[in-house]
Amino acid sequence: MKGARKAHATRATAVVGHPVRRKDGLDKVTGAARYIDDLVLPGLLYGTTIRSTISRGEIASVHLDFDTTGFTIVSARDIPGKNVVSLIEADQPSLADGRVEHVGEAILLLAHADKERLLDVRVSIDYRPAAPVVEPELSPTTFKEITIAKGDLGRGFAEADLVVEGEYRTGHQEHLYIETNGVLAVPGDGGITVHGSLQCPYYVHRALCELLSLPERKVRVIQTETGGGFGGKEDYPSVLAGHAALLALKSGRPVKMVYDRAEDMLATTKRHPAIVRHRTGVTRDGHLTAIDIEVLLDGGAYVTLSPVVLSRGLLHATGPYRCDHVRVHGRVVKTNTPPNGAFRGFGAPQTQFAAEVHMDRIGEQLGLDPIQVRERNALRPGDTMATGQRIEANGGALRVLREAARRTRFRQRRRALRGTDRGLGVALFFHGAGFTGSGEVKLRSKATLELTRRGVRVGVTATEIGQGARTVLAQIVATALGIPYEHVEMPPADTSLAPDSGPTVASRTTMIVGRLLELAARDLKRRLRGRTPAESWRAHGPISVTKEYTPPPGLTWDEEQYVGDAYGTWAWACDVAEVELDRDTGIVRPLRITSVADIGRVIHPVMARGQMEGGTAQAVGYALTEEVVMRDGRMANAQLTNYLIPTTADTPEIDVVFVERPYRNGAFGAKGVGELPMDGGAPAIVNALRSLGADVRAVPATPERVLDALSKG
Amino acid sequence: MKGARKAHATRATAVVGHPVRRKDGLDKVTGAARYIDDLVLPGLLYGTTIRSTISRGEIASVHLDFDTTGFTIVSARDIPGKNVVSLIEADQPSLADGRVEHVGEAILLLAHADKERLLDVRVSIDYRPAAPVVEPELSPTTFKEITIAKGDLGRGFAEADLVVEGEYRTGHQEHLYIETNGVLAVPGDGGITVHGSLQCPYYVHRALCELLSLPERKVRVIQTETGGGFGGKEDYPSVLAGHAALLALKSGRPVKMVYDRAEDMLATTKRHPAIVRHRTGVTRDGHLTAIDIEVLLDGGAYVTLSPVVLSRGLLHATGPYRCDHVRVHGRVVKTNTPPNGAFRGFGAPQTQFAAEVHMDRIGEQLGLDPIQVRERNALRPGDTMATGQRIEANGGALRVLREAARRTRFRQRRRALRGTDRGLGVALFFHGAGFTGSGEVKLRSKATLELTRRGVRVGVTATEIGQGARTVLAQIVATALGIPYEHVEMPPADTSLAPDSGPTVASRTTMIVGRLLELAARDLKRRLRGRTPAESWRAHGPISVTKEYTPPPGLTWDEEQYVGDAYGTWAWACDVAEVELDRDTGIVRPLRITSVADIGRVIHPVMARGQMEGGTAQAVGYALTEEVVMRDGRMANAQLTNYLIPTTADTPEIDVVFVERPYRNGAFGAKGVGELPMDGGAPAIVNALRSLGADVRAVPATPERVLDALSKG
Repeated sequence: MKGARKAHATRATAVVGHPVRRKDGLDKVTGAARYIDDLVLPGLLYGTTIRSTISRGEIASVHLDFDTTGFTIVSARDIPGKNVVSLIEADQPSLADGRVEHVGEAILLLAHADKERLLDVRVSIDYRPAAPVVEPELSPTTFKEITIAKGDLGRGFAEADLVVEGEYRTGHQEHLYIETNGVLAVPGDGGITVHGSLQCPYYVHRALCELLSLPERKVRVIQTETGGGFGGKEDYPSVLAGHAALLALKSGRPVKMVYDRAEDMLATTKRHPAIVRHRTGVTRDGHLTAIDIEVLLDGGAYVTLSPVVLSRGLLHATGPYRCDHVRVHGRVVKTNTPPNGAFRGFGAPQTQFAAEVHMDRIGEQLGLDPIQVRERNALRPGDTMATGQRIEANGGALRVLREAARRTRFRQRRRALRGTDRGLGVALFFHGAGFTGSGEVKLRSKATLELTRRGVRVGVTATEIGQGARTVLAQIVATALGIPYEHVEMPPADTSLAPDSGPTVASRTTMIVGRLLELAARDLKRRLRGRTPAESWRAHGPISVTKEYTPPPGLTWDEEQYVGDAYGTWAWACDVAEVELDRDTGIVRPLRITSVADIGRVIHPVMARGQMEGGTAQAVGYALTEEVVMRDGRMANAQLTNYLIPTTADTPEIDVVFVERPYRNGAFGAKGVGELPMDGGAPAIVNALRSLGADVRAVPATPERVLDALSKG
Repeated sequence: MKGARKAHATRATAVVGHPVRRKDGLDKVTGAARYIDDLVLPGLLYGTTIRSTISRGEIASVHLDFDTTGFTIVSARDIPGKNVVSLIEADQPSLADGRVEHVGEAILLLAHADKERLLDVRVSIDYRPAAPVVEPELSPTTFKEITIAKGDLGRGFAEADLVVEGEYRTGHQEHLYIETNGVLAVPGDGGITVHGSLQCPYYVHRALCELLSLPERKVRVIQTETGGGFGGKEDYPSVLAGHAALLALKSGRPVKMVYDRAEDMLATTKRHPAIVRHRTGVTRDGHLTAIDIEVLLDGGAYVTLSPVVLSRGLLHATGPYRCDHVRVHGRVVKTNTPPNGAFRGFGAPQTQFAAEVHMDRIGEQLGLDPIQVRERNALRPGDTMATGQRIEANGGALRVLREAARRTRFRQRRRALRGTDRGLGVALFFHGAGFTGSGEVKLRSKATLELTRRGVRVGVTATEIGQGARTVLAQIVATALGIPYEHVEMPPADTSLAPDSGPTVASRTTMIVGRLLELAARDLKRRLRGRTPAESWRAHGPISVTKEYTPPPGLTWDEEQYVGDAYGTWAWACDVAEVELDRDTGIVRPLRITSVADIGRVIHPVMARGQMEGGTAQAVGYALTEEVVMRDGRMANAQLTNYLIPTTADTPEIDVVFVERPYRNGAFGAKGVGELPMDGGAPAIVNALRSLGADVRAVPATPERVLDALSKG
């Protein structure tokens, strides 16, 4: 409340670092904010999707067993361009053409003016089924394979006193954004406009151009108010937007498609399940001499973003530790389930779960406590990572580790809990901010500032998905320009109005897009020569400034060798979790998580804390309850009654501490925060269970798994 | 039910004359039909209007006494084109600029994303008031004056045995369409698209071009599903569309404006009040020798459609009677109330109320019963009207009069009721179908038929406003083309897709637009050379045929002299009303109305009957309860609790009988039906009161007026 009251008074003062009022706050609390499901256009049709009920096979025939009057019907034959969902590879069809590769694959699209009529639709499909690939370890199809190598692994193991091995598994995870996927496609002028709940307007734009065989200027993508994304609206909206656009172009009428929860869970992407094997050489006093990691990701039926998920997963696989001899090898393979895709953390939660449980096991074998074994190996300024990236002078994992141990009085508390049903666990972790490797260079993101009568208008396609992008970017602009925050206008992301500032993913928006805006604002400020925007407008009318991304000097990346600066910078964090275990039922109750994070300069303390808390809560679900049960390639528990995310009552107290070490190339020193908290919660909780004697090596640590681990312990 | 079941079976059979299923029926009953208030576009703002609270004066100053953050504000200074509502004259500003001429005149427009915020708006306006003109008889400003003259009035009165004089008054009437006025303006591509609940897309189109200074191709007007019009959506949507468009262009966002009931009643047009004076020469045996009529219409503050309302009023002023010596003179004048405008009947209900009550008074003075005095004078084939128009061989009023007298056993019933509190009254009336005089020639309406894969698509801007236009036009096309009714597509009226087929007013749609479509369909049929549309499509692709209106041969009109064929044809009708009077309270209960009508060929019997019943019910309200109380130029009873329209319980049994005399120039012989029933109900009811001794000469015949008339009788 204090923060909110203060926000009202914030005008011409510098606003970075202050909890200003959210740009989207008032509309959201008053109900004025409009989501896709709120939109109703003249002549609107509602669309629906007929999907495969088998996980692999050929389509023998399709019969429409209902009165089709008034329906628009689209099949693969109606696609004007390429039948492909354009992302990394061109392997995924927009609509199945002859064969299906997973349950839920779209075969036919239908639209009708009366939503209720869609319930009467009866379509019979005859298949010639084929044997599906279910186990990733048995998959004959590798989508992508990557190796990171440093030093001489043989030498490293030779230097070791001890080799510790282990296998760790993580399951699917459902995004469960509060708003399901939804788009509205509006035909007109020989082209299409798509409004959608989405993270990456230009991804959708590109996919539509290819699918519909339309030139860029005939396709417009506009983000509507979006109720959460978590990566689930990075890739999937390209599928859904294509479907709605096909129906809209065929019918000549606006078409809305909004999934209900069951359809969203059954048909859209999930977090990649992983199997990670560690073989680690270590000296008796606890120094790592060799790290050998093997990662296998389950990609599902199509490539989507799997290669980059694998890449990020491998780059985070060692955890934030130094070691001279490293080999990380990984593959992502095809199975016949709905494709897995982007999800907060993007491969890193899987591999760091393995790294951090493994680190506790190393400590146990050496008789070192969890803090000691980590302190000995934590990356410090000047150290190099697996790719050779050197840790900055104000970087590294040590500081957050020590701060977390100090704040939680880790050792004392652990001693105090000994013999009780409460356990304490720690996880030390990091997260690379921005696109991997030369990704940002390839993106060539642009951001525009345009003078208005009153202030400035920001032209970016960064999306507000609840995380606060609109607010943070406006804070950066207001501060750099020295104008009131209220005078910075943040229109919705619209490909026809703003340049491509890159996708809203990879914890890059504040750091990268914010930095572009900071530079644009400083430039604009020089051009104002001491005048206010209003004065300048009156004198000269509109001015606009566009900035394009250029990499900070000295950053190098070799994509072939996987050597160099994998990320411009890294955020660092340490979680300490205290849990209570019911040894009879196996039910784990997380009591408190302390999260100490270095995300660089904090632009908006309330929202940054919100990101940490939300991500940690999502990690609690990942750790304990969120289990996707796949049966014959179909999610068998696609409902909120048996896919369990933490409710408020299940979420522990979360204590967030920021260690602000500014990053010189981020907006006002900011790094990323969105994904970081997803990486640490699960290993911290599982390590707390270890301290209670439960040797859990897979998440979610369901009561069954915990009881099993206890019985073996 | 029988009709409905039959409709399902109607396919390739001729459908004119059959009660086929309404084109708009299913969507309306299932709730799939979308009205303006249902539409929500991305970025939508809601607009509101700040209005004058005085009836005449200058605006001294305007102060905004609220936090204007987030509001778009438009005043007269923001108008890019001419500050005018383009109709007949350019006298009405879109937004008051310096002075106001009526209560409710729009001064300022505001829009905000949050509808609730519009409730917080506080605007103080200081005026320098001037004395308003309240009484039309005292108005110094005549908008329009017209004289119709025939024969030699002096000679006519010289031939008379008796001269009967009388003054008759009618009040305002509120349209009370079930859906209030509403539009949605969407900016884009340097132009504007307006969706609206409206009758005349091209009227709105023209008004927007002028107001916004936009070329025709940059303005698009699309009708949404419309919940009734009754003429109230002929003129007013041009005002409201202009307002929403101004807000949309200034904000760059879609703007919706939907009036609530009170605002709709306070600010929009009403039926013109009238004072009509008759002086009639008549022979002892009941023949009319001279008719001298003086009409005064109250136009309200601006011209709107008053000149044509006056014209139609005068052309119907004699009633359907023959007389060699006629003078009809009328004026419409300015008063400081909201402008009056188009309303079902369009001047004719006012003047025919006077004519028909006067005719009963003539009969009384001569000792002739109401049927006798009318039979003697009713227009017959070969007779000429006041303008010299000759009655067709199958035309005239006599047949419907005799049929009504026969059906109701008028004389017997009247005798039977003598001495009771029940009275029986008759009214004989007519209504010119289509635009007056050379109106249709000037309109040059066009209609298009376009072959589709399955049938045809109709291209007209005739609007479905509940009356059934979409259905009737499709019946005409299906029948003329010999294809199933279901294969005729009726898209919503859209100025960007269909040519101007003229406004949906003046009972012209079935007769004129239907006829154009009939001719287009016959033409298309010839071009199909025996093939079905589907076969032709496969062989040759799309074909389209456009027909433009040409007047039937022999039709002449002299606008200067008011001589000639005022209408292509006339519909004829006779109402007999039985009422019950409570002599203590003055409350009148209408018990039954029999309406015998000649509307030419009946295209859809159920809907034609619906038009007759609805119009008669509206006439019952006009006759008895619908009283607009103007106080200081403001409607003092702008609410449904004290502006009383007949409920189902107040509506008498209505017995409709069609006498089908086909009109050779109408679609399949059809004339118009929409306005006709509005003309007869009020005089029939008031004449029934006369038979009970209440000499009522004004409507509404409220209990106060009835008691007053009884006390004088």
